[in-house]
Amino acid sequence: MQRITKDQMTNMPSRYRAMLINSISGFKSASLIGTCNQQGELNLAMFSSVIHLGSNPALIGFISRPDSVERHTLSNIKQTQQFTINQVDNSFWQAAHKTSAKYLEEECEFVQTGLTPHYIKGILPPLVKESPLKYALRLIDIMPIPHNNTLLVVGEVIEILCTHSALKADGYIDLESLNTVTVSGLDSYHNTQRLSRLKYAQPYQPAIRIDLNGEVIEDG
Amino acid sequence: MQRITKDQMTNMPSRYRAMLINSISGFKSASLIGTCNQQGELNLAMFSSVIHLGSNPALIGFISRPDSVERHTLSNIKQTQQFTINQVDNSFWQAAHKTSAKYLEEECEFVQTGLTPHYIKGILPPLVKESPLKYALRLIDIMPIPHNNTLLVVGEVIEILCTHSALKADGYIDLESLNTVTVSGLDSYHNTQRLSRLKYAQPYQPAIRIDLNGEVIEDG
Repeated sequence: MQRITKDQMTNMPSRYRAMLINSISGFKSASLIGTCNQQGELNLAMFSSVIHLGSNPALIGFISRPDSVERHTLSNIKQTQQFTINQVDNSFWQAAHKTSAKYLEEECEFVQTGLTPHYIKGILPPLVKESPLKYALRLIDIMPIPHNNTLLVVGEVIEILCTHSALKADGYIDLESLNTVTVSGLDSYHNTQRLSRLKYAQPYQPAIRIDLNGEVIEDG
Repeated sequence: MQRITKDQMTNMPSRYRAMLINSISGFKSASLIGTCNQQGELNLAMFSSVIHLGSNPALIGFISRPDSVERHTLSNIKQTQQFTINQVDNSFWQAAHKTSAKYLEEECEFVQTGLTPHYIKGILPPLVKESPLKYALRLIDIMPIPHNNTLLVVGEVIEILCTHSALKADGYIDLESLNTVTVSGLDSYHNTQRLSRLKYAQPYQPAIRIDLNGEVIEDG
């Protein structure tokens, strides 16, 4: 086992440290966040920090750096109070990665990457037409995280669009059938291969495998 | 595309809604959080909400429900001001899942699951011996998230233990070589297959693939 101490972390070159610390939190989701400003100019940016906060109400958050390339996202959300989250699949992961390039303010990531804006009634910001699982949110809160000046942006899910066949009997969405990708570190993209779903754990019992619809298929 | 409105979400059975909303945020990491109380009693609990907050200082967070099965984790962290995060791999994912069963307070998840506590100097809570990537943190903050009474627990990474061969030249950790798993929804576990690492995106350029050490291998 390689041991890395706090002193070693403090003295690392910043890019090395960023790569390391972005790796240790494990696999992450790959999401494009769609926004627009009050003039209707669109923005699309890749985030790997989208996180489930609760299901009643349906709250999803993400981490924003205040002075980073994602600042258009934050500024636009403040203006319209809405944003969209679009899961990235293995047909457009490279286009999605390109949204992290530093384009000029007047340049649109949709145009630059070839992705297609898609609009739904009542929602100002664009969704990504190519995404097989996407949803619109209204802004609930922007919570400053002391110690490093990042922000937890909290949204309430107000509409979900999902490829019909992926939605299973108990509400589970089969992401693997949608070919959505997962991210490790800052820049590595991965397909997935299911081991199994497992039944809600009971004390003193072995793990029990369930099928995609949540039905028991065998004892673990 | 299946469309799901806010009204539909509000009227869903709560377990269905929990399964659905836990699915839409995409793939997540599988982490065992190790803690102990002041009497030295151990706790180990599965979380899929571990999130990177920043690399300088190295801050990692997770979401805790105040009145849920994870309350021992929170209570222990308040007592010792320390916790550990242990990535779950595909050799002990079923044991890790079992930590979410409702054991009695005096029962230890290490004993119940067969996982092995591992201690390092200066850190009170246990790490998981079986985990190929794990780290110890000191508590920085517990931030209440209004609207649903969850908490963002923020820790600073003070020591990392990682299988040596997985740490690459630029600080990237090859999670896939460690066989760490990713989670979808509440209960589905997945292996991964790398598509590629990609070079930091530049405007007007195609995506460029890089190898595990961060070197360009081909134009995208």
